[in-house]
Amino acid sequence: MSTEKIILGIDPGTTIMGFGLIKVVNKQMEFLQLNELQLKKYNDHYVKLKLIFERTIELIETHHPDEIAIEAPFFGKNVQSMLKLGRAQGVAMAAGLSRDIPITEYSPKKIKMAITGNGNASKEQVARMLQSTLNLKELPKNLDSTDGLAAAVCHFYNAGKISVGKSYTGWGAFVKQNEGRIKK
Amino acid sequence: MSTEKIILGIDPGTTIMGFGLIKVVNKQMEFLQLNELQLKKYNDHYVKLKLIFERTIELIETHHPDEIAIEAPFFGKNVQSMLKLGRAQGVAMAAGLSRDIPITEYSPKKIKMAITGNGNASKEQVARMLQSTLNLKELPKNLDSTDGLAAAVCHFYNAGKISVGKSYTGWGAFVKQNEGRIKK
Repeated sequence: MSTEKIILGIDPGTTIMGFGLIKVVNKQMEFLQLNELQLKKYNDHYVKLKLIFERTIELIETHHPDEIAIEAPFFGKNVQSMLKLGRAQGVAMAAGLSRDIPITEYSPKKIKMAITGNGNASKEQVARMLQSTLNLKELPKNLDSTDGLAAAVCHFYNAGKISVGKSYTGWGAFVKQNEGRIKK
Repeated sequence: MSTEKIILGIDPGTTIMGFGLIKVVNKQMEFLQLNELQLKKYNDHYVKLKLIFERTIELIETHHPDEIAIEAPFFGKNVQSMLKLGRAQGVAMAAGLSRDIPITEYSPKKIKMAITGNGNASKEQVARMLQSTLNLKELPKNLDSTDGLAAAVCHFYNAGKISVGKSYTGWGAFVKQNEGRIKK
């Protein structure tokens, strides 16, 4: 019996949203898409949020992903940037939640680790590993747009090791396991 | 000619979402509803976000508000709590954005100021002023749930003074006018 599933990976930010799609057929990855939504040119924060929400809905309705993986940093420079990032994540999550698609979030470190074996790998190293693993003909000029695809691939690797993936699927679980890292 | 509009006020938090509805008929406020969504009992962060999104969509579809007012603190204890708050705000905003309803956000201080004339008023003072202004028969036990209604009333007061309201409608504008308050 053949199994097939589609994973949508998203990196929702306020200047760029990177996204990628892979198809998993019989435990093998197939590359479907890698793209970005440029948000820098919009000054209005609500316009950005609306575009993130709409593009995510559009991706869901076009590709019918079975699962969504989100790159979600837990740490940031300051409370203002985290509030803005939280909103960007929130609207992307709302799109998935509104269609009842399971969402798993991964920290940037976790994604780098899953793809290159090194949690501190550079963007170039992650991109080159994605290129070789998925047989991509070329890489985008702006490597930020590969972060969404990287989240999808990380999710694929973690599907086989539920105990590892699970530990990063929720805020509650993250906090429980990283109490020393949370600033009270 | 009579004009009529409905304002939905929301205070999206991760333990409670307070919400209220008022109808504005010929520049007079009429109280419609005051309620809360309890989220404390759910441990899963995604369940909370989904419930906030769904309740906001339900409120929109039931009452067809013309405008949405959101209580949105710009400052918080730490980056983790701001990320969580940002997500809660994000899913509520996504509900409004998905239905093309204009959203205006107000800081807690601004709301207290608009309702009581004192930006540092207590929750009790705000609630009692709402009770008297809107002829509420009783106040809820948990005064947190009045914050959404307070945002709606603040939005009503600001509709007549666009120049004041406008200055708080967006992140960009807020930052411009409060540069000294933003931690870089």
